Amino acid sequence: MFFGKVIGTIWATRKNPALEKLKMLLVQPVDSSRASTGAPIIAVDTVGAGSGETVCYVTAREATIPLPDSFAPVDAAIIGIVDRIDPEVIETM
Amino acid sequence: MFFGKVIGTIWATRKNPALEKLKMLLVQPVDSSRASTGAPIIAVDTVGAGSGETVCYVTAREATIPLPDSFAPVDAAIIGIVDRIDPEVIETM
Amino acid sequence: MFFGKVIGTIWATRKNPALEKLKMLLVQPVDSSRASTGAPIIAVDTVGAGSGETVCYVTAREATIPLPDSFAPVDAAIIGIVDRIDPEVIETM
Amino acid sequence: MFFGKVIGTIWATRKNPALEKLKMLLVQPVDSSRASTGAPIIAVDTVGAGSGETVCYVTAREATIPLPDSFAPVDAAIIGIVDRIDPEVIETM
Amino acid sequence: MFFGKVIGTIWATRKNPALEKLKMLLVQPVDSSRASTGAPIIAVDTVGAGSGETVCYVTAREATIPLPDSFAPVDAAIIGIVDRIDPEVIETM
Repeated sequence: MFFGKVIGTIWATRKNPALEKLKMLLVQPVDSSRASTGAPIIAVDTVGAGSGETVCYVTAREATIPLPDSFAPVDAAIIGIVDRIDPEVIETM
Repeated sequence: MFFGKVIGTIWATRKNPALEKLKMLLVQPVDSSRASTGAPIIAVDTVGAGSGETVCYVTAREATIPLPDSFAPVDAAIIGIVDRIDPEVIETM
Repeated sequence: MFFGKVIGTIWATRKNPALEKLKMLLVQPVDSSRASTGAPIIAVDTVGAGSGETVCYVTAREATIPLPDSFAPVDAAIIGIVDRIDPEVIETM
Repeated sequence: MFFGKVIGTIWATRKNPALEKLKMLLVQPVDSSRASTGAPIIAVDTVGAGSGETVCYVTAREATIPLPDSFAPVDAAIIGIVDRIDPEVIETM
Repeated sequence: MFFGKVIGTIWATRKNPALEKLKMLLVQPVDSSRASTGAPIIAVDTVGAGSGETVCYVTAREATIPLPDSFAPVDAAIIGIVDRIDPEVIETM
């Protein structure tokens, strides 16, 4: 999974029917210090992410797993809101 | 998903039979400001995209999901026409 | 899909049995102007591509779709010979 | 598989339910000399990796294979702790 | 598929059980002239590759196809030993 920051919303009227009820957000990939890395991507929201929040997202085939319709042509999905990153602190599971 | 701009059509007479009825477009990957990023790719059109339009496309296995024949050897498909990108504006679903 | 130019043949005596009857070609990735982009890859031929021809190829799991044995460990396959690239000309399907 | 070094823990309260019981670690990709290569990623731990350990991890769809729930939206998983790398020494299996 | 050169062995005592009987090799990606390209990766051997040999390997989900247990969390596998690369010479299949 990768870190990203939600920076916008995408509007597309003409689209694949499986995308009708999905919210497509513009996500800026960031590193663990929240610094931008590379160009923004489009990810489907599955956790109610808001503008400016740091999220983690999955890519490729895994991105369809959290969707209501797992045959949607989607290759990036937000799967969590990041509360905190603890460097070098590993808790026992 | 990624942003792209339709910049051409690909013609291939000799090809895999599963590609016979698919329209292959030349797509220039762009960022959310419509600036080019990297080399053009070939994507199958599934929404009737026209020259110069900003589209979003999926890659890898997801690209076959919107096709009539999901066993076509296709790894990039246009799945929506982008109307508008709203930076920092997140609507409730 | 990506553009490539066929630039050679790969010979491998010791190999996975599923590769026995497949022709492995050396393919130079190129952009839509036929300029080289990155290092050559190895792709399985499924359309009878010849030396110097511009082809389009798929990668990852899709690469096994056009093969006789879809469980062959193959991650790149040539699926068409490119006749022509028309910049900015989009035909109705 | 790739080499990485465990450098932290990720906390996310709001997340996909399939991630509830998984430990998400911050992993710095490294090369075989343990030098950093690229930005840290988020990987699910499946072997009890500790802070500072060199691990190997898989990406993409394979990352769900070692999980209790293989439909979890996960695209990177730690699958081993690296004890030693022997350059140029190949043992018979 | 990609070219690589076997440059070492990886030892990991604590690992996913599905990896128990697999030999993990350190592989330096190379181009068709055997020049190094990028950082070494870890690939499972399926053909008995030896130190210094030029091999071809597959990545992602295809990497599990040649394994005894196709649910092993493996994303790179050596599938052939390269004997010869003939530039510009294409044989009829």
